[in-house]
Amino acid sequence: MSTLSTDLRRAIDGRWAHIREEARSELEPARFAPPSRELTREEYRARVADQLRELATTGHPARGLSKDMGGQGDFGASVTAFEMLGHADLSLLVKAGVHWGLFGGAVANLGTQPHHTAYLPRILSAELPGCFAMTETGHGSDVQSLGTTATWDPDTDELVIHTPTPAARKDYIGGAARDGRLAAVFAQLVTGGESHGVHCVLVPIRDEAGEPMPGVTIGDCGAKAGLAGVDNGRLTFDHVRVPRTNLLNRYGDIDEHGVYSSPIENPTRRFFTMLGTLVRGRISVAGGAGAATRTALTLALTYAGHRRQFAPPGGGDEVVLLDYRAHQRKLLPALATSYALLFAQNELVSRMHDVQLSGDAADPHDQRELEARAAGIKAVATAHATATIQACREACGGAGYLAVNRLPSLKADTDVFTTFEGDNTVLLQLVAKGLLTDYRDTFGDMDTLGMVRFGARQVAGAVIERTAARGLVERLIAAAPGRDSDGALLDRGWQCALFEDRERHLLETLAMRLRKAAAPDADAFSVFNDAQDHVIAAARAHVDRVVLEAFVAGVDACDDPAAQALLGRVCDLYALSTIEADKGWFLEHTRITPARSKQVTAAVNTLCAQLRPHAQDLVDAFGIPVEWLGTELVEPLADVG
Amino acid sequence: MSTLSTDLRRAIDGRWAHIREEARSELEPARFAPPSRELTREEYRARVADQLRELATTGHPARGLSKDMGGQGDFGASVTAFEMLGHADLSLLVKAGVHWGLFGGAVANLGTQPHHTAYLPRILSAELPGCFAMTETGHGSDVQSLGTTATWDPDTDELVIHTPTPAARKDYIGGAARDGRLAAVFAQLVTGGESHGVHCVLVPIRDEAGEPMPGVTIGDCGAKAGLAGVDNGRLTFDHVRVPRTNLLNRYGDIDEHGVYSSPIENPTRRFFTMLGTLVRGRISVAGGAGAATRTALTLALTYAGHRRQFAPPGGGDEVVLLDYRAHQRKLLPALATSYALLFAQNELVSRMHDVQLSGDAADPHDQRELEARAAGIKAVATAHATATIQACREACGGAGYLAVNRLPSLKADTDVFTTFEGDNTVLLQLVAKGLLTDYRDTFGDMDTLGMVRFGARQVAGAVIERTAARGLVERLIAAAPGRDSDGALLDRGWQCALFEDRERHLLETLAMRLRKAAAPDADAFSVFNDAQDHVIAAARAHVDRVVLEAFVAGVDACDDPAAQALLGRVCDLYALSTIEADKGWFLEHTRITPARSKQVTAAVNTLCAQLRPHAQDLVDAFGIPVEWLGTELVEPLADVG
Repeated sequence: MSTLSTDLRRAIDGRWAHIREEARSELEPARFAPPSRELTREEYRARVADQLRELATTGHPARGLSKDMGGQGDFGASVTAFEMLGHADLSLLVKAGVHWGLFGGAVANLGTQPHHTAYLPRILSAELPGCFAMTETGHGSDVQSLGTTATWDPDTDELVIHTPTPAARKDYIGGAARDGRLAAVFAQLVTGGESHGVHCVLVPIRDEAGEPMPGVTIGDCGAKAGLAGVDNGRLTFDHVRVPRTNLLNRYGDIDEHGVYSSPIENPTRRFFTMLGTLVRGRISVAGGAGAATRTALTLALTYAGHRRQFAPPGGGDEVVLLDYRAHQRKLLPALATSYALLFAQNELVSRMHDVQLSGDAADPHDQRELEARAAGIKAVATAHATATIQACREACGGAGYLAVNRLPSLKADTDVFTTFEGDNTVLLQLVAKGLLTDYRDTFGDMDTLGMVRFGARQVAGAVIERTAARGLVERLIAAAPGRDSDGALLDRGWQCALFEDRERHLLETLAMRLRKAAAPDADAFSVFNDAQDHVIAAARAHVDRVVLEAFVAGVDACDDPAAQALLGRVCDLYALSTIEADKGWFLEHTRITPARSKQVTAAVNTLCAQLRPHAQDLVDAFGIPVEWLGTELVEPLADVG
Repeated sequence: MSTLSTDLRRAIDGRWAHIREEARSELEPARFAPPSRELTREEYRARVADQLRELATTGHPARGLSKDMGGQGDFGASVTAFEMLGHADLSLLVKAGVHWGLFGGAVANLGTQPHHTAYLPRILSAELPGCFAMTETGHGSDVQSLGTTATWDPDTDELVIHTPTPAARKDYIGGAARDGRLAAVFAQLVTGGESHGVHCVLVPIRDEAGEPMPGVTIGDCGAKAGLAGVDNGRLTFDHVRVPRTNLLNRYGDIDEHGVYSSPIENPTRRFFTMLGTLVRGRISVAGGAGAATRTALTLALTYAGHRRQFAPPGGGDEVVLLDYRAHQRKLLPALATSYALLFAQNELVSRMHDVQLSGDAADPHDQRELEARAAGIKAVATAHATATIQACREACGGAGYLAVNRLPSLKADTDVFTTFEGDNTVLLQLVAKGLLTDYRDTFGDMDTLGMVRFGARQVAGAVIERTAARGLVERLIAAAPGRDSDGALLDRGWQCALFEDRERHLLETLAMRLRKAAAPDADAFSVFNDAQDHVIAAARAHVDRVVLEAFVAGVDACDDPAAQALLGRVCDLYALSTIEADKGWFLEHTRITPARSKQVTAAVNTLCAQLRPHAQDLVDAFGIPVEWLGTELVEPLADVG
């Protein structure tokens, strides 16, 4: 560990640095590292179930529960500790996330006092293993259309849980196949023949002996691409009866006469409020994806730093892989993006902590912004994980294909992150929709021309969502040299202006385009569908800007000059490689000239070469316990040359 | 099966269509399809070893051997049959490729009559399972630097095979861990203290009872990301003695006095000639990657054609996934590229067949061109496989993550294709180097200005490597409208001109840039290394052009008007989505205007919408036996909606 990487670590560990340090020492590899030998699926599941109970004894889970529910109310600490599990075994991460985060989160956030008292202690201790039964075979992303029903029976004052069609079978449910005893089942709530939309009901699925409850048919999803330690299964309900009070009734209740009531009148708003309370799941997935990606980069860059191949022309020692430009190009921009996303994640977790500490008093706008931010970061961080871990595997050649070197499991385990907890394509559309709502709130009454006259600066001020660094970024932009002046590529203000300009333009043109859907005779679906790639581009541009600003704030806050200077170069690489990746857009929209575009590519190459000597420091700064990295990639054969 | 897909199939099945048909009916799923239940690694290896012997009885393997060696000399048929295995179990494909292709190929191509007589019959029948022991832990891509030695001992007239360092251990060797009995070992050949470079020696590694031979230490690579049915292992030799005549001596021999001789004087040329005889391996990998990708696309597009999610605004039936533009964008350009690569593969196999039928009489230029083409297509086809199968997995959400739906194994099994049989990054550099050699041969004596004056057309004529469609393409280009005239996006000549122009420009500027390495005091490594991304871009542009021209020829040759018209649209989508993917380059080099660039994107969207109704026909045309696709994605629950 160099001083530099220690200083870097302080800068990137964020507000819950002490939790990261605690995890580094407490999450002992002996107990929590990935299995060192191959396990059968049953052995792996049993191991992870044991580890879950072990984790319960560490006290970590209580951090995620508010104090009035018997927890510690340290939400940021909880999500940070969860993220650190992403360096260990991802099956355990997902198992813990399902049990405490999703299942426990549903009981805590959708239930009320009696549910809290009855269940939370045994959920915290993992004595009552749970499932989060939302997704069905026929409906994943479109939760509002779930087919499972929960029908109130006036004769017995019970809810009858039923799977009316094969498509309504609960599917891919973590914990269902082996361990789960109680499931938080999302179903259409029906009273007196009337549907009140999707609500959540607690349904016992196994008895104490582990046998399925009457009327519950349990299937096993069997082998998956990865996450072999998670027992995903299928649940089918045949008129399963539970007490009415098993309805998690914070946002919708039925009284003993079958009368439905809710504090939120609008059913759509009610539905999204309920889902919104579960935002921590997406934030946690983004965090876990980030940790897994950093593990992969640490392995691949360490290997690239000692592995040699091919002597240079004219002879001499064989060249170290990382000295090749093509190899730098494969790994270093991805490393820079991982830094950027880590700062963005820290900011997101911090914001979540503050919003959720406010409880019911939280500003609805803050809550909405948090949800959009979580959706966007989750989509971008998990896509980055998939692409980067793939690149790391390939950068290690045959060695990267061996299970013993962990890259295969990192890839396979995280692969589903792009489509679970919200499919990324759907999430990015959600982000854009949120931005357009802001847009409409501000400019709804203005016609197109009026909007254009209103001026770009003000538009940006209103639509461009606030980030922690906003004031700083605005000062940087104001001080930036003109668009095409020479030598400005490394000017942070110029970089920020370019990101912001792209987002604003994509959003403004999208708003105009979608306005057509409101015209009489418009085929609204066609208008939206034709704009779908535009929608996704706008959302991505937005997330890129948010991520860059988090990085800018992080560099600004770093108090060690050497670390700050290095972080600045990493930030340059993130900014310029992101611009380069979308240079087609910037050129099409004449935001950069062809000459400028070529300079961007040259600058990315130069930055890669400049950062290459610091690559090991930059991955060491992630602080991944060496026991979790104990592979042949990191500890090669003595004289492998 | 529609008539249209039957007509399409005739167009894409190529010169060895009868072999494809034979494989469709003969490679019975009951014997060769992927395992329907989970197997332990040992069970899987045993199954694949059995299947290999089954395959031997079909007579397929004899096609790949020339008639004078007891085969049928139908090389194209052999590679085509191998490609069809890519629809079945990829472990079997790789196992067969290692045994007959690599190991058998080494004996056939590097050995002489005595080796052929002694071994080929038992190799054909799979009675003598073999290994191809080239890669070492320390050296993969850089075969010339292998560490294993084969030293002639004058006292016994034997060769002593030895692993001098841990890094020289043979690694990732298919067949080594369980089944292999004889290994084709690549080693530095040493006589009288002098090294003659890398040669291949046959070394028994197991006795009849399956026990390691004295001095041979065998390790197991254990679990891998995929290909669980292939027993990859490690070989370490401790002064293992074999008769001198075990040297495969076609290109280099030692007589009984230890005197080395070779028909090829230049050691580098000798080395590359030896490697060049093994070109069929890369062609086969490209073929297998193509087949696996088509399987994945068939699964994902079939699913996308019936899976529904979200009702449109205003209500009505939920929308079929493939009606969403974002979903079309994920899958249809990839489908078009798969068509393009299939035509290119057919052309490559045909060329290989003709060159290899000529045997020693083959034109060295043709052989060199074949090797470059094989390297380029292998790199592009396997990268396409990795990206496309990933996209297919994601397009199927949770269902795509279940092993039962095959996408996980397609992804994991093909993942190593990008780095074995030549790492893609290394291969693309090889392609560029080959093109530059042509370049130098033609223009070596001309200075830069002279070269420019020589005129672009002639430069292209000389450097742009010939393809089957060259005459046709030149006529199309000559008839193409000007660069920026409206409505020309779908003009095939305009598309071809753009591809060709990009390749020529990248190559010309690369040649000028690399010339600096020849200057006195030049740091040749730095010059090459700084240009590495340029080198790779030039190679990719070259392969893209070759692939497009193969597609153009394929469309031209299609004799059914409806199928031809549809193929034409698919070709448009391939051409325009390829241009779109690299629009940054075309804009930077002012090959297209910003307005034109936006039109390209719009045209890609339009083409996706136009092809969407034909998506099922287009995948049905691949003719993958339905038993090999028997997953929940293709045969969904009756009423999953």
